[in-house]
Amino acid sequence: MENKDKIFVFGHKNPDTDSICSSVVMANLRAKLGENVEAVRLGELNKETSFAFKHFNIEPPRLLDKLEDGSNVIMVDHNEFAQSADNIENANIKMLVDHHRVADFKTSEPVYMFSEPVGCTGTILYRLYNMNGVEIDKNTASLMLSSIISDTLLFKSPTCTEDDIKAAEALQKIAGIDVNEYGLEMLKAGTDLDDLTEDQLVSLDAKEFNSGDVKFKIAQINTVSIPDVLRRQDKIEEAINKVIKDENLDLFVFAITDILNSNSELIALGKRTDIVEKTYKLENNRAFAEGMVSRKKQILPMVTDNI
Amino acid sequence: MENKDKIFVFGHKNPDTDSICSSVVMANLRAKLGENVEAVRLGELNKETSFAFKHFNIEPPRLLDKLEDGSNVIMVDHNEFAQSADNIENANIKMLVDHHRVADFKTSEPVYMFSEPVGCTGTILYRLYNMNGVEIDKNTASLMLSSIISDTLLFKSPTCTEDDIKAAEALQKIAGIDVNEYGLEMLKAGTDLDDLTEDQLVSLDAKEFNSGDVKFKIAQINTVSIPDVLRRQDKIEEAINKVIKDENLDLFVFAITDILNSNSELIALGKRTDIVEKTYKLENNRAFAEGMVSRKKQILPMVTDNI
Repeated sequence: MENKDKIFVFGHKNPDTDSICSSVVMANLRAKLGENVEAVRLGELNKETSFAFKHFNIEPPRLLDKLEDGSNVIMVDHNEFAQSADNIENANIKMLVDHHRVADFKTSEPVYMFSEPVGCTGTILYRLYNMNGVEIDKNTASLMLSSIISDTLLFKSPTCTEDDIKAAEALQKIAGIDVNEYGLEMLKAGTDLDDLTEDQLVSLDAKEFNSGDVKFKIAQINTVSIPDVLRRQDKIEEAINKVIKDENLDLFVFAITDILNSNSELIALGKRTDIVEKTYKLENNRAFAEGMVSRKKQILPMVTDNI
Repeated sequence: MENKDKIFVFGHKNPDTDSICSSVVMANLRAKLGENVEAVRLGELNKETSFAFKHFNIEPPRLLDKLEDGSNVIMVDHNEFAQSADNIENANIKMLVDHHRVADFKTSEPVYMFSEPVGCTGTILYRLYNMNGVEIDKNTASLMLSSIISDTLLFKSPTCTEDDIKAAEALQKIAGIDVNEYGLEMLKAGTDLDDLTEDQLVSLDAKEFNSGDVKFKIAQINTVSIPDVLRRQDKIEEAINKVIKDENLDLFVFAITDILNSNSELIALGKRTDIVEKTYKLENNRAFAEGMVSRKKQILPMVTDNI
């Protein structure tokens, strides 16, 4: 019976640090406002996120096994149904907090929806805490800060806004940590890819999109050494081609992002690589993308503009 | 050149008082925040709205003749593209403030979106003024208050929330008017339908929806005497059947709402009146709907639940 009233809070599939942290942060907020909520996740924690939760000794949310018809949900850090829980179309969406384009999202009833073009969901949640007059405790501040560091690549991504920087400054004081020192440590923890199989590498942070008739995925991994990752290019391509075949994709773009120098190497495969080639000449299926670090603000618009 | 940077603010087609007032109120807010904005409207003012602007001696917005490709826009009081300006899909949507279900809406970039399940867009705008620390002047308060009175039928609609009531209480003080006295006068002004043709009656406040394969419209007019309107039933049905044919609709529901007693008489026509008949037995194409006054919260869900 308890579950009938319970509200599940989750971010997108293949969760990143913002999706996981913002689920917990939003669940804390709604709980303090008297609601019966539980943060859950739609996939495994990546190494960066694991590092953050271990660092602050916070229990990460459990995996949601199944979303029943009519479940109450709060979506954070995403809105597109293709990136959400299976059966989301039969859920009762009560609230949404996000910072992505709006597409492939609908409700049958009016809904609380706070979407802003800022770098991170955590930044919007920071405002929602203040708006509701709810105090931000040390753990909550640490998780919000981890979200912001992750999504803005320590304020270096073009998605980073003044709002993100201001929120991080205030949160740093509550959390009592040095944001640059902790941030670099956390980002580096996410670049430890050695024990991941190539199948895991290409699905770790992959998002599916639809634009026109084109069904495509953009996956992204962070590294401190692009050549280190490219040593595995053959096997990575095998893994990508398997996903393309299994999921009937037209295009797969795999971005290997150098977090220290703010560049990416793109590997593009599928029958519609011509879309990427309108901007980048592919050699050996790949191209160096100078200054490109943001899927949302750079890679995705590049693809959709070329479709 | 000026128009290239300008941001147009508008509500839905067949504008009601909330759509018109909220366009002006939102344009005032953005102007005070330093933006180059203009409130425009997507249709003629109804009598209720005209009464409000005349009463406070405020200039209503001009009709938008054409929305050029790439125009900057702020949408208020709606999100569904079918209810918005022609060519909205090629506009640059910067912001959206709304209180309806979300459907048939998408952007290519992240966007400011404030949607809340409250009775009126004006109530959300009241919060946005406070959030941005912008003072609400007397005219702005009067227009917000008119929005709230209109959408909540002077707080009697089931869509009315605590937030709407609280906003109205605060705005009443700024506007310096008696909300009940002015409110009833304004609502009554909107029920003067005598000089409208039947074609005008059925399109005055009509909204189009799509659900499953069903394309339908729900129109609503306010009255203080349902029998007065029903005297024109034959000609109203003629007008509705013309719209059904011209726009290839499956269903047209025309709600005649008694604002004094909070009931509606529904006229339903089209090849899918079976949808309405799952709830109401139609006699002579119509049915009395006890306590039904809200399209959003009562009529629309009744239709979509029955599809």
